[in-house]
Amino acid sequence: MAYKLAFIGFGVVGQGLAMLLEEKKKLLKNQFGILFTVEAISDPVKGSVCQKGGLDLKKILSIVEKEGTIANYEKGEKGWDSLKTIKESNANVIIEVSPTNIETGEPGVSHIREALKRKQHVLTTNKGPIALFYKELSELAKQNNVILKFEGTVLSGTPALNFSFDTLTGADIQEIRGIMNGTTNYILTKMAEGQDYNTVLKEAQRLGYAETKPDADVKGWDALAKIVILANVVMGGNIKPKDVPTQGITDITLDDINAAKKEEKKYKLIGRAWKEGGTVKAKVSPEKIAREDFLYHVNGVTNALTFSTDVLGNVTVVGPGAGKKETGFSLLTDFISMHHAITS
Amino acid sequence: MAYKLAFIGFGVVGQGLAMLLEEKKKLLKNQFGILFTVEAISDPVKGSVCQKGGLDLKKILSIVEKEGTIANYEKGEKGWDSLKTIKESNANVIIEVSPTNIETGEPGVSHIREALKRKQHVLTTNKGPIALFYKELSELAKQNNVILKFEGTVLSGTPALNFSFDTLTGADIQEIRGIMNGTTNYILTKMAEGQDYNTVLKEAQRLGYAETKPDADVKGWDALAKIVILANVVMGGNIKPKDVPTQGITDITLDDINAAKKEEKKYKLIGRAWKEGGTVKAKVSPEKIAREDFLYHVNGVTNALTFSTDVLGNVTVVGPGAGKKETGFSLLTDFISMHHAITS
Repeated sequence: MAYKLAFIGFGVVGQGLAMLLEEKKKLLKNQFGILFTVEAISDPVKGSVCQKGGLDLKKILSIVEKEGTIANYEKGEKGWDSLKTIKESNANVIIEVSPTNIETGEPGVSHIREALKRKQHVLTTNKGPIALFYKELSELAKQNNVILKFEGTVLSGTPALNFSFDTLTGADIQEIRGIMNGTTNYILTKMAEGQDYNTVLKEAQRLGYAETKPDADVKGWDALAKIVILANVVMGGNIKPKDVPTQGITDITLDDINAAKKEEKKYKLIGRAWKEGGTVKAKVSPEKIAREDFLYHVNGVTNALTFSTDVLGNVTVVGPGAGKKETGFSLLTDFISMHHAITS
Repeated sequence: MAYKLAFIGFGVVGQGLAMLLEEKKKLLKNQFGILFTVEAISDPVKGSVCQKGGLDLKKILSIVEKEGTIANYEKGEKGWDSLKTIKESNANVIIEVSPTNIETGEPGVSHIREALKRKQHVLTTNKGPIALFYKELSELAKQNNVILKFEGTVLSGTPALNFSFDTLTGADIQEIRGIMNGTTNYILTKMAEGQDYNTVLKEAQRLGYAETKPDADVKGWDALAKIVILANVVMGGNIKPKDVPTQGITDITLDDINAAKKEEKKYKLIGRAWKEGGTVKAKVSPEKIAREDFLYHVNGVTNALTFSTDVLGNVTVVGPGAGKKETGFSLLTDFISMHHAITS
């Protein structure tokens, strides 16, 4: 089966997927029977190009790395915006990786709506649209008989949604809790080693773990989006982000951390969703975690989720929660499982 | 879709599945469209019964619990052995849960061969046949266009094989290592708290964690079967158990453990499979694990596997590795995924 892809967004994640598509081209063909061309890329910063029949992805990646823009790619039509690209590029699979906005879901949700209505499959890592509009978008996909996949919205490539659906199928998941933001876990880990918040934040920014404007991470909004997705998608909840009590790590002092240490505990920013009286609730807050809890031992930028189930008790998955290739990989698994769903 | 099941073996695991089938009957029907009857049970100790149209599973479970045998179940034909049950019970799904033998694979492998040849699907938790004859059996299943599933042969219901295939699809798994035997991990955990081997072993036997004849666990054979299955099934290896260097925990002394403690390390019985020069190798042995390694923190009867991949680095899954419902659940997930494979 041959697919025509268009990338809406070509930042870190889009480039990560493009690299993996190049690296794993043979595997996709030989192991899964997947053929593909990338028909178009549209990014407000890197530029846009549409080439029917397929771009030279290797060349694109190399130009973007060197020049920061695809303006000098020789072929194709330039300058199409995201919606024109969705409508006119001839793609049947839209890779939606534009910047996330957890308050409005824009521009991602408009891209996804347009694509689904046009009967294009959508693979995305964009948390905003899924946290805010999962129900609407999944119904829209169903109505149009196309696939919407978004594994990477939770722990990048570390299995979270697929872990729940594919491998825990048949189990009743009563609670999901975990460390779902690497930046804050890195900061809390370093603070537990004795460094103060501001010093660690600067170091995290230098290392690329934290943004210049770190609010989305340190105020808990990123973890909020993820726990809302887990609550609604995995546990059947109907939660809006604004209804979830959310506290970040900005009020945690070195004194708090040292006091916790005396109790043999560590502060972790915990996202939690649980079933209570027929509904699903969620919360994001720093919690003191005891040594006996597996999450105590999850340090640095690593993420982890513990699923409490009726049949297995607790099952925990631990892995990276961000990164270029890691998040790109989530789109690759989505692509493969989309293909399985279409062809089987 | 309606399935006719026959249980070959009705010990702890078979009863665990039967309980779950009762508990989750509605879920199976409503969520997955799965209907089923249990047409027959054959167990050399608990007795055998075949009732065309379906046994009363609730009654069977209650009788077995009270009387230790199904002899007094009122209906059906009694006394059929395993092969007669496979051949004549009218079942199209065989649940093979007879006792495992890692040297010969018998009687499980004969049951599985017979069932596959007769175009019956097979779901099993029996490690011996899969560790010894995976290639032959999977080809036999393919030839006969039926499904062979065996998730529970590795970590009972904790996702191991499905984790590799379904959620890490597209990744190159370069190494799998982990704690895949709960009995030895319990013993080593207790020894690290200062108790000697014989005292802990007796306690483990009292708690039902260790068999009266504990060789399969403490000599590493159970972990051996599991790592061979992972090596062959997940990593494409072609390994026989007899070719794998295997060392159990019987030579580990309290002195060894205390010496490790001084280095801030813990002994764990580690199964390991890795790619080396185009082939897959495997090994089972006690290893000193450092605090930085997640496996250090996996204590008691809990199991864990770390997958080293090209795209995600290390991803670890932690959960129970044994238990009545836990292992029964692996068969339930196999049943559901068999259904998906058949109907999609």
